[in-house]
Amino acid sequence: MMIVMRADATQEDVQSVLACVEELGLTPHISQGVERTVIGVVGDSRNVHLDQVLRQPGVDRIVPITRPYKLASREFNALDSVFQVGGIAVGAGNVIIIAGPCAVEDRFQLLETAHAVRQAGAHLLRGGAFKPRTSPYAFQGMGEEGLELLAEARQATGMPIVTEVMEPEKVQLVSQYADVLQIGARNMQNYALLHAAGASQRPVLLKRGMSATVEELLMAAEYILSHDNRRVILCERGIRTFETATRNTTDINAIPVLKAQTHLPVFLDPSHSTGYWEYVSAIALAGIAAGADGLMVEVHVHPQRALSDGMQSLKPERFAHLVSQIAALCSALGRRMAPPEQIPTPPSERLEWST
Amino acid sequence: MMIVMRADATQEDVQSVLACVEELGLTPHISQGVERTVIGVVGDSRNVHLDQVLRQPGVDRIVPITRPYKLASREFNALDSVFQVGGIAVGAGNVIIIAGPCAVEDRFQLLETAHAVRQAGAHLLRGGAFKPRTSPYAFQGMGEEGLELLAEARQATGMPIVTEVMEPEKVQLVSQYADVLQIGARNMQNYALLHAAGASQRPVLLKRGMSATVEELLMAAEYILSHDNRRVILCERGIRTFETATRNTTDINAIPVLKAQTHLPVFLDPSHSTGYWEYVSAIALAGIAAGADGLMVEVHVHPQRALSDGMQSLKPERFAHLVSQIAALCSALGRRMAPPEQIPTPPSERLEWST
Amino acid sequence: MMIVMRADATQEDVQSVLACVEELGLTPHISQGVERTVIGVVGDSRNVHLDQVLRQPGVDRIVPITRPYKLASREFNALDSVFQVGGIAVGAGNVIIIAGPCAVEDRFQLLETAHAVRQAGAHLLRGGAFKPRTSPYAFQGMGEEGLELLAEARQATGMPIVTEVMEPEKVQLVSQYADVLQIGARNMQNYALLHAAGASQRPVLLKRGMSATVEELLMAAEYILSHDNRRVILCERGIRTFETATRNTTDINAIPVLKAQTHLPVFLDPSHSTGYWEYVSAIALAGIAAGADGLMVEVHVHPQRALSDGMQSLKPERFAHLVSQIAALCSALGRRMAPPEQIPTPPSERLEWST
Amino acid sequence: MMIVMRADATQEDVQSVLACVEELGLTPHISQGVERTVIGVVGDSRNVHLDQVLRQPGVDRIVPITRPYKLASREFNALDSVFQVGGIAVGAGNVIIIAGPCAVEDRFQLLETAHAVRQAGAHLLRGGAFKPRTSPYAFQGMGEEGLELLAEARQATGMPIVTEVMEPEKVQLVSQYADVLQIGARNMQNYALLHAAGASQRPVLLKRGMSATVEELLMAAEYILSHDNRRVILCERGIRTFETATRNTTDINAIPVLKAQTHLPVFLDPSHSTGYWEYVSAIALAGIAAGADGLMVEVHVHPQRALSDGMQSLKPERFAHLVSQIAALCSALGRRMAPPEQIPTPPSERLEWST
Repeated sequence: MMIVMRADATQEDVQSVLACVEELGLTPHISQGVERTVIGVVGDSRNVHLDQVLRQPGVDRIVPITRPYKLASREFNALDSVFQVGGIAVGAGNVIIIAGPCAVEDRFQLLETAHAVRQAGAHLLRGGAFKPRTSPYAFQGMGEEGLELLAEARQATGMPIVTEVMEPEKVQLVSQYADVLQIGARNMQNYALLHAAGASQRPVLLKRGMSATVEELLMAAEYILSHDNRRVILCERGIRTFETATRNTTDINAIPVLKAQTHLPVFLDPSHSTGYWEYVSAIALAGIAAGADGLMVEVHVHPQRALSDGMQSLKPERFAHLVSQIAALCSALGRRMAPPEQIPTPPSERLEWST
Repeated sequence: MMIVMRADATQEDVQSVLACVEELGLTPHISQGVERTVIGVVGDSRNVHLDQVLRQPGVDRIVPITRPYKLASREFNALDSVFQVGGIAVGAGNVIIIAGPCAVEDRFQLLETAHAVRQAGAHLLRGGAFKPRTSPYAFQGMGEEGLELLAEARQATGMPIVTEVMEPEKVQLVSQYADVLQIGARNMQNYALLHAAGASQRPVLLKRGMSATVEELLMAAEYILSHDNRRVILCERGIRTFETATRNTTDINAIPVLKAQTHLPVFLDPSHSTGYWEYVSAIALAGIAAGADGLMVEVHVHPQRALSDGMQSLKPERFAHLVSQIAALCSALGRRMAPPEQIPTPPSERLEWST
Repeated sequence: MMIVMRADATQEDVQSVLACVEELGLTPHISQGVERTVIGVVGDSRNVHLDQVLRQPGVDRIVPITRPYKLASREFNALDSVFQVGGIAVGAGNVIIIAGPCAVEDRFQLLETAHAVRQAGAHLLRGGAFKPRTSPYAFQGMGEEGLELLAEARQATGMPIVTEVMEPEKVQLVSQYADVLQIGARNMQNYALLHAAGASQRPVLLKRGMSATVEELLMAAEYILSHDNRRVILCERGIRTFETATRNTTDINAIPVLKAQTHLPVFLDPSHSTGYWEYVSAIALAGIAAGADGLMVEVHVHPQRALSDGMQSLKPERFAHLVSQIAALCSALGRRMAPPEQIPTPPSERLEWST
Repeated sequence: MMIVMRADATQEDVQSVLACVEELGLTPHISQGVERTVIGVVGDSRNVHLDQVLRQPGVDRIVPITRPYKLASREFNALDSVFQVGGIAVGAGNVIIIAGPCAVEDRFQLLETAHAVRQAGAHLLRGGAFKPRTSPYAFQGMGEEGLELLAEARQATGMPIVTEVMEPEKVQLVSQYADVLQIGARNMQNYALLHAAGASQRPVLLKRGMSATVEELLMAAEYILSHDNRRVILCERGIRTFETATRNTTDINAIPVLKAQTHLPVFLDPSHSTGYWEYVSAIALAGIAAGADGLMVEVHVHPQRALSDGMQSLKPERFAHLVSQIAALCSALGRRMAPPEQIPTPPSERLEWST
């Protein structure tokens, strides 16, 4: 880090900072400008209490030089991370599509949607059993019953399951059913949950908080990685800005920025990042064009009957069209979608689920 | 709510929406404009799955008429809520000051600071034993040992304790030591934690999330209130904007807005909302001038040695000066600070704590 | 519009609002809810002074039903606008690429860059002669001399010219040289300039202000359209948010939102919307994938010597690669780039311009 | 400035940057860290084309050390600027109140309001003759006729006039009538206007753009100051954020930040920064408590008939109450309002203006 002194700092102030830096076990390095003195600090300052330096008299501000995350950084791992999720390689340049309903609502809705998205070309099935809702009066999810339906859908379609976990003490339960633990935007800095998800050694899909910077997202990933759990997928899902024409503002820039700064796979959720199904396909394509490793798309067989987020859910036909467009776009840009063969064959005969 | 139809909606579309509204047990009411039709919906639509209506063909958007929170609203309770916290009346027009270090670091630091802030006129003592940190490599707090030190500080000074709880399963533990459970900005939408804090029946200080709207803050309070726990203090602590000159942007407007929309007491944390001690006093005074019921201020006996947030901590002398200014300002505006007599006498003789 | 009354509004309040609405020449329409009364207003309220109603006692808020812009709206013109700019059709589903240096710096730099971008497949040439700069001490552009160089570059390459105008009284001068007048982000609400550009009857490329909503961008376009100047290109160039990893946040959502709400062509400037050349190609492709009608890209033959925005300028080789990727992406999605034949042949022999 | 090299920068990269820095007439200074090299640059880099350095291979980013503004900075002028505006000292620690209608609408409205605000204790009269409006269909102001009415109001009340100018070529006209030229938020980066206002040598009230940083506001002031026009008042008027409960978000932090960074007087406009008259008084008091040198408040004799901004205008009685609160608050904090004697006596007998 560099310590920038005020223009009116005295020699005494500078000496005091030098002493403080040395006391912290680091090596200071003076750079004398015309107007100001800057003190470079050599050594690993990640664990250092910067505040101790910041409050020294004469200090204007501190400029970090190294990034605060380590395990998540490209410098730590120059090559893209690749790992298996229920038999499917994520991050290998394979474009992966996660699809399914916002919430598990009932057996029929889930199984019908699961078959439809698998048919259309999706690789993983999403569906929420525990739902974070702004209002305590809104539908909060089916809970464990929902998890059982998800397991049934995996059985029926072969698709690995992605589902959200909202509390540390539910990590074990959800892990019994889910192939990928999803940590939602509201919980991106729920550190107890990040620790528990890290310790579970399950793959984790970590959504960016709606006001989190890219750096904070990487720091949250660092919590999981610090448990030596390397299977972390980052997911941009829109940030909060002044614009109200859409539910959130898709930070499409975050895709190439993340690809430059981290080796972890980067996904986009165009459903939450727009909030309106009319815009989902355009933004899904934009995400892939920008370099995303995958998408997470809400699909519902009957969006107008959805208990949540129906407004942003695609119908299966439209989703199928989107998948074919993504495949064409991948070819045009020299990339490819993960081949359907990667999806495991259903371990059992197709269950009877039709109404 | 009002359902606004598209300009090109057909008669059939309108009929279909009417049928859907009736199916949901509500009464529709047509209002035919020159360009568009608007359908008013009479009945309590709080539990209704709006998405079902939103996805009807011909629907442009839905405009909520009633606010989504209920127990937190002024309409539910026209008079300011007043309740006791460790013998001190909060919300009675009494201005209350919570002060103390960001984190409990050691016995000496805590007790010295506690005595200093009590001496200066603070009413409650703050101090974090569990600390949410952006980096997994930063100091995470002393944990239960910190709670024990807080209890000792209460014993020594008589001041009730405010301290943060970050996980549902720690609510019981923290409640054994704390007079007020603090829920931090990052956890404002940690619903399991809100439920647990509500169920504990302890007073709760709920900080606004850094990208939460005023309405979302009130919805989060609603989670706690729905457990019939009425002792909720709301705390503005700055929101995230494009401005980087300060750590956060104090949303001073939120003070009068909250006072208009809710009966709950409204506090301001000028330490986090600015991030620099140089600006804390100015913003603390602004908060009281804007109508806040209290403040939460970080004070540290040796800010330059603080393990966290030293940059935004006041020294005791400066804090004492601030308290005297607040008292003068209260007099000028016809308000008053809670009298020091309200702070309980230390239940024991003053402990020996000096080094 | 709908007038939402407060829950505690009296019958008298309602009557007073009804009278006021009628006085304004509009027809009120009462809708009585359980908790609140809502008054629909029938008639064109675009010119009505809403404030008069808003200040009536008992009024909670006003909800606009019709959008405030008219000539720019899809409802006014359901089909995409198509118009000629220097012989090239804009908005016909043709993807158009505007490229060139941020600023005109000297004859060699401009001509070399112009030939390079034309060679690479760009359709229009950009280059600033008048530069808006945050600092009065920064390079402010070459002024009229720069315009003359732009004219020379058009002469040499056949490419129509896009260049910025910053003041109403310069509109006439710039119109003598430019095929398209660019109005920059900082001037999006410079109404005198909008009026002057509208009156000039020149095509206008209107950039979105960095904190302007989509609706405000359309209202700014309305100023130009109200002069019966229909040749307006809208250009997303990034908005200001809390994220500092990039210079601005590309509001990619704005592309499909604008395409839905207006008939005007919609462009994206990925250079300003990211601020770093490393991210420009990814976001340029994303823009086309999201449905943009064109791009505006900064290209510089020697970015490291650029007097402004070198950091976000592509080198010609990289730009040429981007153009080929765009062409492939267009094919994949069933769109096409404007054919190079549309660029007029240089009216003169290629000038001698090499150093 | 400090040039931070990438972790993987080669020795050659470093040498190349050193050469480039020297070529720019500056002195480089190497600081070798464990992971990265940082190059300090000694010399005045305000006029230097940073882009030339930024595009060097191996460069990660540039960290400015000195602030980009100079004449506006506290370092340039440690003492508060004090200057006369129509006989009233601004910035002397005197709290100044500017009040009046948003727009001049007619003679009766203006004169009645002018007398009312003078009576209540305001020092300067505001009123817009040229109005920037989002919609081309909204009332655009009375123009020169409005300026004449303002002159009449000054004649009648003795109050100096503050009114907005929106175009460079109107600066001369408006200067004939106005004591203070107001530059509105939308024009904060209208550089031709800033130059013209600077050259006019009139006092200028410069409003912060709705997405401008504090630093950009000071850079805009620098444009005016560079014409040796030192009479610049800065005015915070709310910034644009995600919060929609108020029209803008008052950046109250900007008050003490500006007071620390500049010697220029700092005002607050609580009418625009909130957008609702209910919140204006609370925020006006907050502004003074935070250290503002003055306020700009919209007052209208009949807000419900206002042609613009009636929603945020105070009635005269409420304004008078606010002024008395401000006076009490000033006393409590050891400050004072400018004494009414400073307002010049009307040069003529009171005109007959009543209807």
